[in-house]
Amino acid sequence: MEAFKSRPSGDVLPLAVTMGDPAGIGPDVTISAWLARSDEDLPPFAVLGDAAVFRARAAKLGLDSFPIADISTLDAAEAAFFEGLPVLPAGASLSHEAEPGLPDSRNSEAILQSIDLAVALALEGKAEGVVTNPISKHVLLSAGFRHAGHTEYLAELASAAGAPKRTAIMLMASAPLMAVPLTVHIPLNEVPRSVTRQRISETVAIIHDDFQRYFSLPRPRIAVCGLNPHAGESGDIGREEIDIIAPAIKELQEQGYAVSGPYPADTLFHEAARSAYDAVLAMYHDQALIPFKTLAFEDGVNATLGLPFVRTSPDHGTAFSLAGTGTASASSFIAALKLAARMRANEKAYVKSRVSGAVSRA
Amino acid sequence: MEAFKSRPSGDVLPLAVTMGDPAGIGPDVTISAWLARSDEDLPPFAVLGDAAVFRARAAKLGLDSFPIADISTLDAAEAAFFEGLPVLPAGASLSHEAEPGLPDSRNSEAILQSIDLAVALALEGKAEGVVTNPISKHVLLSAGFRHAGHTEYLAELASAAGAPKRTAIMLMASAPLMAVPLTVHIPLNEVPRSVTRQRISETVAIIHDDFQRYFSLPRPRIAVCGLNPHAGESGDIGREEIDIIAPAIKELQEQGYAVSGPYPADTLFHEAARSAYDAVLAMYHDQALIPFKTLAFEDGVNATLGLPFVRTSPDHGTAFSLAGTGTASASSFIAALKLAARMRANEKAYVKSRVSGAVSRA
Repeated sequence: MEAFKSRPSGDVLPLAVTMGDPAGIGPDVTISAWLARSDEDLPPFAVLGDAAVFRARAAKLGLDSFPIADISTLDAAEAAFFEGLPVLPAGASLSHEAEPGLPDSRNSEAILQSIDLAVALALEGKAEGVVTNPISKHVLLSAGFRHAGHTEYLAELASAAGAPKRTAIMLMASAPLMAVPLTVHIPLNEVPRSVTRQRISETVAIIHDDFQRYFSLPRPRIAVCGLNPHAGESGDIGREEIDIIAPAIKELQEQGYAVSGPYPADTLFHEAARSAYDAVLAMYHDQALIPFKTLAFEDGVNATLGLPFVRTSPDHGTAFSLAGTGTASASSFIAALKLAARMRANEKAYVKSRVSGAVSRA
Repeated sequence: MEAFKSRPSGDVLPLAVTMGDPAGIGPDVTISAWLARSDEDLPPFAVLGDAAVFRARAAKLGLDSFPIADISTLDAAEAAFFEGLPVLPAGASLSHEAEPGLPDSRNSEAILQSIDLAVALALEGKAEGVVTNPISKHVLLSAGFRHAGHTEYLAELASAAGAPKRTAIMLMASAPLMAVPLTVHIPLNEVPRSVTRQRISETVAIIHDDFQRYFSLPRPRIAVCGLNPHAGESGDIGREEIDIIAPAIKELQEQGYAVSGPYPADTLFHEAARSAYDAVLAMYHDQALIPFKTLAFEDGVNATLGLPFVRTSPDHGTAFSLAGTGTASASSFIAALKLAARMRANEKAYVKSRVSGAVSRA
């Protein structure tokens, strides 16, 4: 995937990293990433939240002299980054101590304040993008959280701030594979009726636009999976390909998109097949996530397209049982930081090229 | 997968190879495999069918002096194998010439006679096993074929010959992964209602028995996938795991099977996860076939468990458009020959160990 390999360039602002659930492995991987900042050539970042969480987690991990740089504005993060992990308060301190592995719904407000501030800083142009640490929807629900998920909450914050409303879609990003599931966290028996022409059209348009913007691909090639075994085998094994998916693809092709399919999903993910497209649109969660995690288990990144700012996150959850144990791998979080920086650098180049294009046409 | 690496030993009879659809790539890959018999250290095999098909295909492929050994009993195959491709007539000659790429339903009888003879020879103990070349169900249907598929036809032949009736199940076999789909060629919207405790129990029992018999694993470890994303996430994303899959697994565990799950399917196929099981039971076609073909696109083999004889086949179809062009890869067919020989050798050792066990207990 060429898209994944492009490198950032030029001056950069910090990335805004959310705290995530303080009882999960977010603090662990954030601390590990900061320690690896030189080896991994990481872009500068600051965590938004309660510095006490990170001090306590570092101590728990046996890093007694771990340096934390308390900052009061994000501007200060870049200078502070090489001396200590920059932490910017996002609201009040945690009302309850974050015990690794023991989530406490009373900390929900602090978890959400971190996300709110990250989005605000990204929309104001003070952060290059947002990298979110994992949260637990279960924990937040019990505190009154009424959003479909992390990604939907980010989209609603952006919309509330006046950004044009687009559907936020999940991109599983890695060097071997870029995959978007059309439907995500719904039961398998709801998938067939959720595969609609409208949803396919909307999703392909967002992939097209955002691969231009974030991955420097002028005409991204999008391969669409069938829903049924062998993509329905000409209607012998299901009709959604004939009735819904193929017509949606045809219409999109007529509109100029480089989209093709529906392809039998089982033959779409070996190396030779992958070289023929830039992104694959799968019909459901496991159809995208099985090949993705088979090919990129350690350093896959979950990025969100359709938002008015760059957002990435590691592709794992809170992993409460690993918090504070020193066994959590930071590789996906590190990949999320790098990808956010690349996406933002590509976006800047894209915007600049369009501006200069507009000027030269004037 | 240790199961896949075990080697055959001792004296062996030939494998019976079916002709498959003579307009497909079966003849091509059979000829290629015979040419590679020394390099690949292949077990002896004979094709059952019309020698004219193989002579014509060899000529079409530019192999004018390709040697064919016309044999009249399978006993003659082993001696003939190193001199020419042994071909044993399976019935009348083809009534219509097999034009590569142009299937003709009038040849259906000859296609089926080849399969019938292969099964008969295997059941009589004259062949070590059956390796089938691809057939087209479409072509056979128009000639009155009334079976659900190739595998089901084999099971019916075995049953008609008096073998104990067991369900024939598809095993996708390769060095990195052994995967069984619980449901196969049905539309995705029929999958949820087809996932039943009965079917899971029956399939696990066959995997267990046949991995003992064919893969020398005394207690095969079987990992079972969930149906829904994240295996249903405790019922938040579908209830089949709670209502059907988990109770089936619990019952099987109580019966002594080394079965576990249901696991989120997306995290079950990376290298570390695969080392924890010998076979994975997926709930539907793409859940097994996506990781399988991602990991083993070139040399995957489709084996059938539950039959009273060894049966393997390449994991590709007739590929009519490639027939006679010289571009068809024989790697999966070659892997199918090798796997059939290994399975049969393991079976002999298994039977012998049980006999000597019975004697020593007597």
